[in-house]
Amino acid sequence: MSTMQALQWDGKQLAVHEVPVPVPAKGEALVRVTRAGICNTDLEIIRGYYPFSGTLGHEFTGVVTEAEDSGLVGQRIVADINHACGACAQCLAGHPHHCQHRTALGIKGRDGAFAEYLVTPVANLVAVPDQVTDAQAVFAEPLAAALEIQEQVNFSTVAETAVIGDGKLGLLIALSLARSGIQVTLVGHHCERAALPGFAGITYLDTKPDRQFPLVVEATGSPQGFAEAVQLTAPRGTLVLKSTYKDALTFNAGPVVVNELTLIGSRCGPMDRAMAMMAAGRIDPSVLVTETFPLNEGVAAVARAGTQGTLKVLLSP
Amino acid sequence: MSTMQALQWDGKQLAVHEVPVPVPAKGEALVRVTRAGICNTDLEIIRGYYPFSGTLGHEFTGVVTEAEDSGLVGQRIVADINHACGACAQCLAGHPHHCQHRTALGIKGRDGAFAEYLVTPVANLVAVPDQVTDAQAVFAEPLAAALEIQEQVNFSTVAETAVIGDGKLGLLIALSLARSGIQVTLVGHHCERAALPGFAGITYLDTKPDRQFPLVVEATGSPQGFAEAVQLTAPRGTLVLKSTYKDALTFNAGPVVVNELTLIGSRCGPMDRAMAMMAAGRIDPSVLVTETFPLNEGVAAVARAGTQGTLKVLLSP
Repeated sequence: MSTMQALQWDGKQLAVHEVPVPVPAKGEALVRVTRAGICNTDLEIIRGYYPFSGTLGHEFTGVVTEAEDSGLVGQRIVADINHACGACAQCLAGHPHHCQHRTALGIKGRDGAFAEYLVTPVANLVAVPDQVTDAQAVFAEPLAAALEIQEQVNFSTVAETAVIGDGKLGLLIALSLARSGIQVTLVGHHCERAALPGFAGITYLDTKPDRQFPLVVEATGSPQGFAEAVQLTAPRGTLVLKSTYKDALTFNAGPVVVNELTLIGSRCGPMDRAMAMMAAGRIDPSVLVTETFPLNEGVAAVARAGTQGTLKVLLSP
Repeated sequence: MSTMQALQWDGKQLAVHEVPVPVPAKGEALVRVTRAGICNTDLEIIRGYYPFSGTLGHEFTGVVTEAEDSGLVGQRIVADINHACGACAQCLAGHPHHCQHRTALGIKGRDGAFAEYLVTPVANLVAVPDQVTDAQAVFAEPLAAALEIQEQVNFSTVAETAVIGDGKLGLLIALSLARSGIQVTLVGHHCERAALPGFAGITYLDTKPDRQFPLVVEATGSPQGFAEAVQLTAPRGTLVLKSTYKDALTFNAGPVVVNELTLIGSRCGPMDRAMAMMAAGRIDPSVLVTETFPLNEGVAAVARAGTQGTLKVLLSP
């Protein structure tokens, strides 16, 4: 039995372990991970907010090394992180991301991508075109999550959008909206980020805007950010909730009812569209990479990712 | 100067006072009130949740007694309660209910309908056809609020709807949806209400349903009702918030984001459509009337309206 390195969380401690290389089940591929990204969800798991234990990581790109279809071997890929049953009411309704029996790579019931190898259903694979680098492809999952907003909201009637929060998710949302031709105001606390490549054309504010917007995206993950986002949404406007919150939210529902706001929860999105957008050169999320660590320095990488002011930290197995 | 009776709230006390008959401004009509309905908002004002003082009441029907257009005099009418400026961004965008400078009859900045007479802009008037009784017409405002849901949600893709709360608003919502051909499950605590005329065809449950719904309407006004409504909304489903809440809501936003729910705040609706629905005999809200009091017994009427188990209490000036 061959072994590999994996960055694992056992519910108490984070450490790199030598573990067996996983064996693909029928319909699955074995993938050699070439880059993986550390997401806030990973940080929240090790802070105890989610009950996951095992190999962390769900943002990744890699190369297929084993599959029933030999034509896949050697293919650079990313993969949808939701593993759906294909048979429940949600799956049959065409919403596999909401499968009632789903597992999720490195988040729920399935070892993740902070390892030399992982297994994933072949059905979840999305090919990475040659012109997309590993440091770009590793953003397919969070970029897809950002693009999910455009799956849910009809932007044809939206004159401008405010994104609240300039962490890595907020930046990716702002960038994906702006690169889709939508006028974006980004509200945050790190004005130097407005100078990142690709952010020209995005209005950056480091104080609360003095007007309301027909569409607001909340990407702070803080109750204060949520409250501010409600205030910034114009009557009959839409507020997209893109963050999860560690604690229960307390808020005044009055303005939501009186101003007839629409609040939309938004989670995973279309990986294929994310990849197509990068392949076409319309967006380069790799500008958000702060540092890349080797996998055996995974504990230090996660510590770095949790440091104030850090954007995306990658692992290179 | 002629005087009239009016049920007024001075911020501390509710009492019937003898006050001057209001004088219509340019563009306004003087209306003799024939019936007025007591709403939970009235009860909340006298419990101190809204800072209104003056003549209460916003659900009414009456007869025009004075107007620049003499053709209006003698006309039975109801009226939209929102008085819009006609010039702000919201008004110009076609949303007078969200006018930034609006007043609202008996709620904000304008004396209401618990009086022998009131004034209202002629532009707000909606005629009451002969076949609609006063006891029906007085429901035009809350029925319009119930119908607002159908202005906001596309029901063509919704197989069935759950309404949480069988108070007078919940009942009116359930009735208006069912009479519009929508399959409704009403969840409440007063199973005898399922026997009201017109409620055949509505599934009534006095325990929490064991399944989720693609559309849920929250009409309890309680934080527990809100939490239950979130749980009952299926992934990618819609939850309509039809109640205001006395206190800040505390809730776990996790399921809203993870299940990609859409929450829609819903307030005032189209009075003309409410009237048309009653005129066509499609709905008879007068089945919800518990008791009618003369205006000079207004204090007792409000006390009765606040009693557990009471549905609609009317005033007859």
